[in-house]
Amino acid sequence: MNEAILVSIPPNVDVAAHALFVANNTWMLVATVLVFIMHLGFSALEAGFVRTKNTVNILFKNAMIISIGLLTYTVIGFNLMYPGDASIIEGVLGFAGFGLDAPAGDAGAIAYADGGYTYWTDFIFQGMFAATCATIVSGAVAERIKLGSFLIFSTVFVAISYPITGMWKWGGGWLDALGFYDFAGSTIVHAAGGFAALAAVILLGPRLGKYTKDGIKPIPGHSMPLAAIGVFLLWFGWFGFNGGSVLSADPVPVSLVFVTTSLAAAAGAIGAFTASYVMFKTHDLSMVLNGILGGLVGITAGADLMSPMEAIIIGGVAGVIIPFSVVFFDKIKIDDPVGATSVHLICGIWGTLAVGIFGAKAGLTQLLHQFIGVAAIGAFSFTFAFALMYALKKTIGIRVSEKEELMGLDPSEHEMMSYADFMIK
Amino acid sequence: MNEAILVSIPPNVDVAAHALFVANNTWMLVATVLVFIMHLGFSALEAGFVRTKNTVNILFKNAMIISIGLLTYTVIGFNLMYPGDASIIEGVLGFAGFGLDAPAGDAGAIAYADGGYTYWTDFIFQGMFAATCATIVSGAVAERIKLGSFLIFSTVFVAISYPITGMWKWGGGWLDALGFYDFAGSTIVHAAGGFAALAAVILLGPRLGKYTKDGIKPIPGHSMPLAAIGVFLLWFGWFGFNGGSVLSADPVPVSLVFVTTSLAAAAGAIGAFTASYVMFKTHDLSMVLNGILGGLVGITAGADLMSPMEAIIIGGVAGVIIPFSVVFFDKIKIDDPVGATSVHLICGIWGTLAVGIFGAKAGLTQLLHQFIGVAAIGAFSFTFAFALMYALKKTIGIRVSEKEELMGLDPSEHEMMSYADFMIK
Amino acid sequence: MNEAILVSIPPNVDVAAHALFVANNTWMLVATVLVFIMHLGFSALEAGFVRTKNTVNILFKNAMIISIGLLTYTVIGFNLMYPGDASIIEGVLGFAGFGLDAPAGDAGAIAYADGGYTYWTDFIFQGMFAATCATIVSGAVAERIKLGSFLIFSTVFVAISYPITGMWKWGGGWLDALGFYDFAGSTIVHAAGGFAALAAVILLGPRLGKYTKDGIKPIPGHSMPLAAIGVFLLWFGWFGFNGGSVLSADPVPVSLVFVTTSLAAAAGAIGAFTASYVMFKTHDLSMVLNGILGGLVGITAGADLMSPMEAIIIGGVAGVIIPFSVVFFDKIKIDDPVGATSVHLICGIWGTLAVGIFGAKAGLTQLLHQFIGVAAIGAFSFTFAFALMYALKKTIGIRVSEKEELMGLDPSEHEMMSYADFMIK
Repeated sequence: MNEAILVSIPPNVDVAAHALFVANNTWMLVATVLVFIMHLGFSALEAGFVRTKNTVNILFKNAMIISIGLLTYTVIGFNLMYPGDASIIEGVLGFAGFGLDAPAGDAGAIAYADGGYTYWTDFIFQGMFAATCATIVSGAVAERIKLGSFLIFSTVFVAISYPITGMWKWGGGWLDALGFYDFAGSTIVHAAGGFAALAAVILLGPRLGKYTKDGIKPIPGHSMPLAAIGVFLLWFGWFGFNGGSVLSADPVPVSLVFVTTSLAAAAGAIGAFTASYVMFKTHDLSMVLNGILGGLVGITAGADLMSPMEAIIIGGVAGVIIPFSVVFFDKIKIDDPVGATSVHLICGIWGTLAVGIFGAKAGLTQLLHQFIGVAAIGAFSFTFAFALMYALKKTIGIRVSEKEELMGLDPSEHEMMSYADFMIK
Repeated sequence: MNEAILVSIPPNVDVAAHALFVANNTWMLVATVLVFIMHLGFSALEAGFVRTKNTVNILFKNAMIISIGLLTYTVIGFNLMYPGDASIIEGVLGFAGFGLDAPAGDAGAIAYADGGYTYWTDFIFQGMFAATCATIVSGAVAERIKLGSFLIFSTVFVAISYPITGMWKWGGGWLDALGFYDFAGSTIVHAAGGFAALAAVILLGPRLGKYTKDGIKPIPGHSMPLAAIGVFLLWFGWFGFNGGSVLSADPVPVSLVFVTTSLAAAAGAIGAFTASYVMFKTHDLSMVLNGILGGLVGITAGADLMSPMEAIIIGGVAGVIIPFSVVFFDKIKIDDPVGATSVHLICGIWGTLAVGIFGAKAGLTQLLHQFIGVAAIGAFSFTFAFALMYALKKTIGIRVSEKEELMGLDPSEHEMMSYADFMIK
Repeated sequence: MNEAILVSIPPNVDVAAHALFVANNTWMLVATVLVFIMHLGFSALEAGFVRTKNTVNILFKNAMIISIGLLTYTVIGFNLMYPGDASIIEGVLGFAGFGLDAPAGDAGAIAYADGGYTYWTDFIFQGMFAATCATIVSGAVAERIKLGSFLIFSTVFVAISYPITGMWKWGGGWLDALGFYDFAGSTIVHAAGGFAALAAVILLGPRLGKYTKDGIKPIPGHSMPLAAIGVFLLWFGWFGFNGGSVLSADPVPVSLVFVTTSLAAAAGAIGAFTASYVMFKTHDLSMVLNGILGGLVGITAGADLMSPMEAIIIGGVAGVIIPFSVVFFDKIKIDDPVGATSVHLICGIWGTLAVGIFGAKAGLTQLLHQFIGVAAIGAFSFTFAFALMYALKKTIGIRVSEKEELMGLDPSEHEMMSYADFMIK
């Protein structure tokens, strides 16, 4: 670290322009770090909401998913999502070849992103997003999926399905041309993951003992502190998820996005608190935590378009949706231990449609485009996930044996205990 | 995210000046994110220091406080704290109207803060501070306060009391005119919260079984790892709390503040370690953790004024204060499960006075101004909190029933358990 | 916080150049914050991997180490590591005097680092690194070392040994002159700490009941969620550790370092997963977690020199090394409860050598220089640590009594329990 300070200003570049470039690039890297820590947020949230006997398993899956996500995005995903000119079906599918291929030289890497950030920054910011989809699935299928099948599913889904639907909008594909808007991914990331989760849960079935002839049996998570840590870290990371999606450090939009994101999360908490209090006559922490997440997912599609008051409405509605959605999914026997479908699928759809209802782009045509976007990405993600999971079900199987499920995945898949010293009920 | 990079340089603004503005604004946003995560720090710390049977309750309160704090700051607090020309009583009270009202257009939002950051950045950075006061109270009243009363108390305190006393200094009020100095809020944030906590605890009384005829019974917290996570995250967030209070990314003051903040925290650990070892002949982890926090609170008033050595002295003294203060409050039967009064009130006062004793502003006149500031803000915060809590006590009540307290607030207020799978003593 | 925005542009400095300086300095401060939180990462990881009865102890040590590390670095370490012209033995040892001594005035502090960042930034970034070495030792000697001896050991090691060997390269010493390369400290930080840990463990001996006549008895850690939180936070912080080691916000190298760091971590997970699956026929979470850390340690020496593919290879090999190394150390009865020697020592050596094998500096001469660097720093660190620990062993003793070890260090050294409410086996 005693090297001469390397402030490589490309020749013929103005110092002022370069300083601006450096500031933009730095913010995008900070945003990358924040999106990264969302993977700890998901890990802690999901771990907190499952039972001790499946906690090692959920941590294992999350540690693997971020790793698999980054590696597959390096090899395939990035070039599938941002194919540039390498079209296979114009606006629908393209592929710029395997692996990363930075433009030659420092100047090239800088020129790449039109003054905003380098090629490497572009890749790593997007790469952190990629694994999120699969992580959403991980919570919904917890406590009964076979580890091997889940890892194969995640790998293929994050390597192929997410980048293809992502390309439709962010890669300049047909949804982008249509006018569909999804600022940071209410649909492209969250609902896509949520649709995949739904497909997986349908094929997998509910956990043993969840829906009995005596009614729906709550299966409480094992650690509310872990769940709370997860939610706070997700909110924390969301400043990078949404704030980084401005794709520069441009002061007005980034700071506005900070405001709308925070207010939507706060309103989500209040909305879920109020609705769940009315419904259940108690102060339900898991509803408030999921209300915060619902607010965050809801604002994500239009975080740069909304006024503070609109953000509060969107987040508040998302919060109110949460307890209704949780009850609804339980009624139709979709067993989702962490509420991922309610948070990511339902609030993701809500947030995407909200772009047509509130804010700078509101209007019937926009609302129609939002519908089309949700429907198209939803149909593709659901079908892809369903087909993949179905193929796994018919071959290696996707569900652990009844004995293993009752014993827990930690002893059966990992020969480990999450809390070796404690007396467990 | 495929939009053209939006680097909106306002017309007639020099690129170099804009680049500097972007760098400043970006730092303020990063500082905002860091202050946000302090709310997880408080949650984890307070959760770790209470018993399992009240853990859901403390997490619930913290998730609600940040949400309530942001929303009330949007509606009322920000315009009460920074009224601009909208004075009611000159220098004492003003109100710029309900809700947020950004200057028109991008250029307006940029011009707002005189070259430092946008209107939105200003709001969100300050908004993250606002809820902190109420969070300080939350720890002190833990394990026996009624949830509803606490939420009402927090809402009113953070919406009205904190912004009014904050305005006296940071909003350009009479304490500012007087010469009172409080860089990042040893008094404005921490002691104000601590005075409110003291008022609340006096009215609420100690937990059952704490002060018995056989002496003071220690009630150990349920998770030292959670408490430690909380303290490290608070230190982490304090880089934004103090570093952001420079209100720009100006290299020398921000980096100096990083140094003084870190050294005070480190010295606080050593001070508390030493004093508590001498007093109790043991290596008390909770003292060291609170010593770190005491050092951080202590340096906050003058973090930009002190040399490294002065920061070490201020932090070290704060650390030594901690065990004495904890013992003192126990002696006068002020039952504070997390030590919030010692950390935030006592070390907040110490740090504020230290500005008159050490550093660039030291002097008798300054010391007098510091006294006046502490006394004025303390008197207002204490009286406001006392009156509000008293009104709640005489109406809906502030304390849960003896039966509920013994059973724990989690089953009685939330019908949930924090650790459903574990065998609890 | 209502002061006029202090954007001190030194006279005669161009605004554009200043803006660039501000951006660089801000990044270095953000990197500092990220390195700071690695200390929480270490705390959580080590706490998770020990038993409940020693958890307060490990948290206590970690809270003290960061504090001691910052204070000793202020008083001695910084000036020993960066002596400038104050040589004692040219290129081997120098000392610029006690305490911090910023160049006069703002302009001086700015000029200090040649356009990159201020004196204070330099100090605090380096200061956060310093304590890391001692923290590495803390995990390896857990569950049986005397607290007092450990604190003395850490203080002396971090105050003297780490800065001296660090100076050989980063302070412009003989290894730097030779051509040894260690970008962010695979050897200077990690292997140095690992060698010290090895020396300490040799003198200390294994935990009671670990190596019995019936073979090696696994002693599982008490909380896998804590361990996972630790690893994710370490990865998070590593963006500052490696990204900050560019010593500016220069866009191309910083973003490349983000890519190589992330891919090496991801490949480390996959490598450890695969190797441990082949070896043990199970999905071992602790191997995957340590594989991530191994990948991070491995890429650290050459994070700025490698292509993405080379980073994947280096990280993947590091991951594969982990289970072999863990088994090896157990075979030779080096009892390391957290695997610190495998992660920091073995993968640190691997990463340092890898600079001679892959990337921009690959070549036989470079490989030789890397060998010399590892050997020299390793020999010094090991000898220093061994001598110091030996002196402690022969005087005040380094190991707790058998009775205390069986009871746990928490009751014996701290009179506290980490989880007071839970039933422990």
